[in-house]
Amino acid sequence: MEDLVIVIMEAHANTEQLAVVIERVDSLGLQAHVSAGAERTVVGVIGDERPVDPALFEALPGVDRVVRILHSFKLASRDFHPADRVITLPNGARLGGPEVLVMAGPCAVESREQLQATAAAVAAAGVRVLRGGAFKPRTSPYSFQGLGEKGLRLLREVADELGLAVVTEVVTPEDVPLVAEHADVLQVGARNMANYSLLRKVGDAGRPVVLKRGLGATVDELLQAAEYVLSRGNGDVAVCERGIRTFETSTRFTLDINAVPVLKHLTSLPVIVDPSHATGRADLVGPIACAGVAAGADGLLIEVHANPREARSDGAQALDPATFAVLMARIGRVAEAVDRRCA
Amino acid sequence: MEDLVIVIMEAHANTEQLAVVIERVDSLGLQAHVSAGAERTVVGVIGDERPVDPALFEALPGVDRVVRILHSFKLASRDFHPADRVITLPNGARLGGPEVLVMAGPCAVESREQLQATAAAVAAAGVRVLRGGAFKPRTSPYSFQGLGEKGLRLLREVADELGLAVVTEVVTPEDVPLVAEHADVLQVGARNMANYSLLRKVGDAGRPVVLKRGLGATVDELLQAAEYVLSRGNGDVAVCERGIRTFETSTRFTLDINAVPVLKHLTSLPVIVDPSHATGRADLVGPIACAGVAAGADGLLIEVHANPREARSDGAQALDPATFAVLMARIGRVAEAVDRRCA
Amino acid sequence: MEDLVIVIMEAHANTEQLAVVIERVDSLGLQAHVSAGAERTVVGVIGDERPVDPALFEALPGVDRVVRILHSFKLASRDFHPADRVITLPNGARLGGPEVLVMAGPCAVESREQLQATAAAVAAAGVRVLRGGAFKPRTSPYSFQGLGEKGLRLLREVADELGLAVVTEVVTPEDVPLVAEHADVLQVGARNMANYSLLRKVGDAGRPVVLKRGLGATVDELLQAAEYVLSRGNGDVAVCERGIRTFETSTRFTLDINAVPVLKHLTSLPVIVDPSHATGRADLVGPIACAGVAAGADGLLIEVHANPREARSDGAQALDPATFAVLMARIGRVAEAVDRRCA
Amino acid sequence: MEDLVIVIMEAHANTEQLAVVIERVDSLGLQAHVSAGAERTVVGVIGDERPVDPALFEALPGVDRVVRILHSFKLASRDFHPADRVITLPNGARLGGPEVLVMAGPCAVESREQLQATAAAVAAAGVRVLRGGAFKPRTSPYSFQGLGEKGLRLLREVADELGLAVVTEVVTPEDVPLVAEHADVLQVGARNMANYSLLRKVGDAGRPVVLKRGLGATVDELLQAAEYVLSRGNGDVAVCERGIRTFETSTRFTLDINAVPVLKHLTSLPVIVDPSHATGRADLVGPIACAGVAAGADGLLIEVHANPREARSDGAQALDPATFAVLMARIGRVAEAVDRRCA
Repeated sequence: MEDLVIVIMEAHANTEQLAVVIERVDSLGLQAHVSAGAERTVVGVIGDERPVDPALFEALPGVDRVVRILHSFKLASRDFHPADRVITLPNGARLGGPEVLVMAGPCAVESREQLQATAAAVAAAGVRVLRGGAFKPRTSPYSFQGLGEKGLRLLREVADELGLAVVTEVVTPEDVPLVAEHADVLQVGARNMANYSLLRKVGDAGRPVVLKRGLGATVDELLQAAEYVLSRGNGDVAVCERGIRTFETSTRFTLDINAVPVLKHLTSLPVIVDPSHATGRADLVGPIACAGVAAGADGLLIEVHANPREARSDGAQALDPATFAVLMARIGRVAEAVDRRCA
Repeated sequence: MEDLVIVIMEAHANTEQLAVVIERVDSLGLQAHVSAGAERTVVGVIGDERPVDPALFEALPGVDRVVRILHSFKLASRDFHPADRVITLPNGARLGGPEVLVMAGPCAVESREQLQATAAAVAAAGVRVLRGGAFKPRTSPYSFQGLGEKGLRLLREVADELGLAVVTEVVTPEDVPLVAEHADVLQVGARNMANYSLLRKVGDAGRPVVLKRGLGATVDELLQAAEYVLSRGNGDVAVCERGIRTFETSTRFTLDINAVPVLKHLTSLPVIVDPSHATGRADLVGPIACAGVAAGADGLLIEVHANPREARSDGAQALDPATFAVLMARIGRVAEAVDRRCA
Repeated sequence: MEDLVIVIMEAHANTEQLAVVIERVDSLGLQAHVSAGAERTVVGVIGDERPVDPALFEALPGVDRVVRILHSFKLASRDFHPADRVITLPNGARLGGPEVLVMAGPCAVESREQLQATAAAVAAAGVRVLRGGAFKPRTSPYSFQGLGEKGLRLLREVADELGLAVVTEVVTPEDVPLVAEHADVLQVGARNMANYSLLRKVGDAGRPVVLKRGLGATVDELLQAAEYVLSRGNGDVAVCERGIRTFETSTRFTLDINAVPVLKHLTSLPVIVDPSHATGRADLVGPIACAGVAAGADGLLIEVHANPREARSDGAQALDPATFAVLMARIGRVAEAVDRRCA
Repeated sequence: MEDLVIVIMEAHANTEQLAVVIERVDSLGLQAHVSAGAERTVVGVIGDERPVDPALFEALPGVDRVVRILHSFKLASRDFHPADRVITLPNGARLGGPEVLVMAGPCAVESREQLQATAAAVAAAGVRVLRGGAFKPRTSPYSFQGLGEKGLRLLREVADELGLAVVTEVVTPEDVPLVAEHADVLQVGARNMANYSLLRKVGDAGRPVVLKRGLGATVDELLQAAEYVLSRGNGDVAVCERGIRTFETSTRFTLDINAVPVLKHLTSLPVIVDPSHATGRADLVGPIACAGVAAGADGLLIEVHANPREARSDGAQALDPATFAVLMARIGRVAEAVDRRCA
């Protein structure tokens, strides 16, 4: 895969400064294409195998700016891997194929009773992947941080009773082996999207990965983070839009719905939408889940709690089982309207 | 409709400072509810008819902050007007009822030929409202600014031939009578959402209004802008989400899809989504249009051009007639999936 | 002044598609420079007199994206007008020269007494330009909207008594002649930065203009808005950074301090900072005013009120006279630290 | 330290729903203050020792919203610790006292020669703390990732030769002991601000910590992250503003200059500004460094490279030694203008 950056010389750069730029292009084994206007000269730099680092030109004298034209990820790009990647889970559920895969469960595993009741409810509604947090990254050090290993064991046991696959978050590199022992899919949360030590470790774990977009990260950076995992030889990565930080305060985050078709265009990795975290409000989860599917998402991550008002975290965004069952039917209808079906 | 603001005293405010706050509450004819903690005292201020202006308390000594709890619009709120407002156009098309209303046409009116070809195409696909710009607000003074009055006449003539209603933008107060003479619906663009002189004039014009959200405006501010129109006695206002400014650069703006159900919750005014401006890319218009409908939008504004590659503005986001016809069918299926139908 | 856009072809665009792009470049009288890589071809398009509109290429078949490389303003650019522009007011005060010019006064003109007391206080502290709002654009239709023409007359009378110049906002095109009759400097507020009808009218009024950056506008768009005024033959334009919309909620807006040296680099127009609106809190005005000067601002707009706690608008961000006098001395010291002096 | 949240009931919540809320307040050992208006009832919930979790009320029936009024950090707050905290480094340099402390050095340690030349230059300009990266978190897996342990050793050796203290970044929990062995100050980068495993480990390491604000994080979240470190018994924490993500693209990030006085108001921890990362452009570093000091910053982090054009990362934002020496003098003058001095 090629790369291309444009070096824009200052309005009054002289020929000596231009020569230094071209010399550097040559020294890096890249090709330079010079376009000289009456006032400005620009140099197109074309690389062949690896991304060209704009920083190598930005500090040269006479250079005004350097603009990257192509994307700085390779393995994650649809150019490199045109066909949709499909991730098949141990229980046969598939992510990235014709079906829209719904993953549901509580924000945090709180107890066996809570988890069993919730898991049974989502399974009854047709769900095949159980989500639930055992390690919870919390903004405040004084908030409930999850049950840890005990939570992982509960997830595995309850899921196995119901034939469900398990997706759960891992928050630190040293926990990767433990989480990989119990879970079918490792989730990297938004706060850890740029935690490169964790990404490398997760890339080595031999499990599918759900990688959430950081709340201040661009689509391009999300795919570069995916590249960290892919570059370890793990191709089973799904990326998840879960809302970004904007000035709007009526919802916790702003779901970047545009990112769904943008990602489908740029990458062949499956794309997931998380309407629960993106809105923070249970009454918005349904409309946004449907919007995600209509926009082309391959999967959804939805928080469901057997009794939301007793939830120890994020109760305001959890659906109760009855509401969720109605939503599942609606999601199925929307999926069919856009030529998909709901797994 | 009540209003409520909370005045938070500083940690070490004294009783005299508190008395000044309460005195001001009394002098305004409002009610004060004092909650005294061990360290902090807060005063709930409840108004009855009109919004309470937080600024009246913020500068008092001993006041830390003033937080508005309720919304600062009244006529626009669903509390005030619980039932969905339905706008009926002269040709019978309805916005805000069970149908999803698609308004389509070119970004700018360029010529009779261009407009006729485009209008015929969208009408054939089932559209009943023609959009098109005669006055174009452009970022650069050197860009094409629209045909002005001639464009308005073309819109009216071409629409009448096909039985379509016309929605078009008005950009300055003095043009309101002219635009109202030719158009069925007056559009206030994103750049003018906070142009209060224009909003008042449009409120007086006796025509339905489509009010677009400013690209740096919150949902609350959008509804306050609608309040300007409503307060002139014009209840036929629809609000339009068309993308906000965020750090993401892969699309021109970020469509705030959350705003659709948020608006449906806060107001009974019809809610429209504009996938063309929100994305700036024709290949994203379809997925985002479907997402808008799935999220609960009452209408869509879509740019269509008989020959996008010859468009004088925004050609990159315009659909060609064939693509649009396929999309209309899909929009209809998504509408049915969420218990609506497409007009 | 040249312009330059880069047309990036899709990875598998064919030679026919490339020919169509080049044909369009030729038909527009522009120059094309083709750089062909193994996978991607890019075309540099160089214009000479006017900006090249990227939209003219975006919709062509085989085109992936079009990137503008240079800025789309001309008269506002430092390339076009290298020397700093200096605006001299009727009372001899200068904006854009070696002095840092402080403009101060109340948010809104409320009464003769309030204005006289405030104006006398700021004059005593060394200020030579009185600011004050007669026409107030307010988010809510129920808030105080200013005294209008009466406020303009008060501004002129009070300023004349003290030898001050007057800067005040104009909010709608039809008011331009009236405001120009009474004020020395016309201010275009943030909400109206993209109100192009107003910009043109203000450009024709023969008065210096202070143009505030829109809260969702980029630096580039601010300079394009300035271009509207400049293109009417009015070169006395100052641009003002007053805070943009971001996700941070501890202040009303986020002052983009980076924009100050960025603007000084891009344009020779004077650059002003408004710490009052950018923070919304009186206790932050002093540090941010000093920061603005340290970053290179040519002027400051500061809200002062003889009695902030009685202010009818924005009292929380107004300084009282004593605090302001102390700040003026500090601003003077900071100005000297960066080789300026305070007017 | 108290906490306070406001539970806002829906417009038509009934008395039974109100009773459930009050029951929950009681069951948590908190106090409820009920304010009943004609249409809306709100409940002020006051906690005494630990933050009240709004989530505990958000999912209850009849609750519209829950608003946190006070901040959710305690140890980091100025209310809790009114006096400025001063961090003294082994070489006697102090952060948070009357001096403004400048920390300078290369983005990444590249070689002994590069480091020695750079360190000698910054020391000659009056700097007492050397910054430099040994572990570099890079957006792309293909970029230079730092020299690791070898880089740490070089930092220590070169700093010792010149009597400098060392600040360097640690990116993963398992590296904390190694970095703490060589560095005087541990830096947690913006990408890791919410890496709670790392924060806890760093809190336990017995070294001062520089904690950078995440590029999508609020001021409140920055202080909650500091709370993670403080809650481990480590009080030597400085927080650093280094730019946030906004829609503006002319600089890499937008320095939130308002955050400097906001932080000084909220916390007694030292506040640092990083003009290099906040702008990404060497020509802007000087103005923004001065602005930071003028706004009240206690320290600066500045990238300097003996030969910026040969830098392996971020060369475009590094100052050369001569430019830096001139800037140091200017920083000193600005510090004096605001009643500080430069260490």
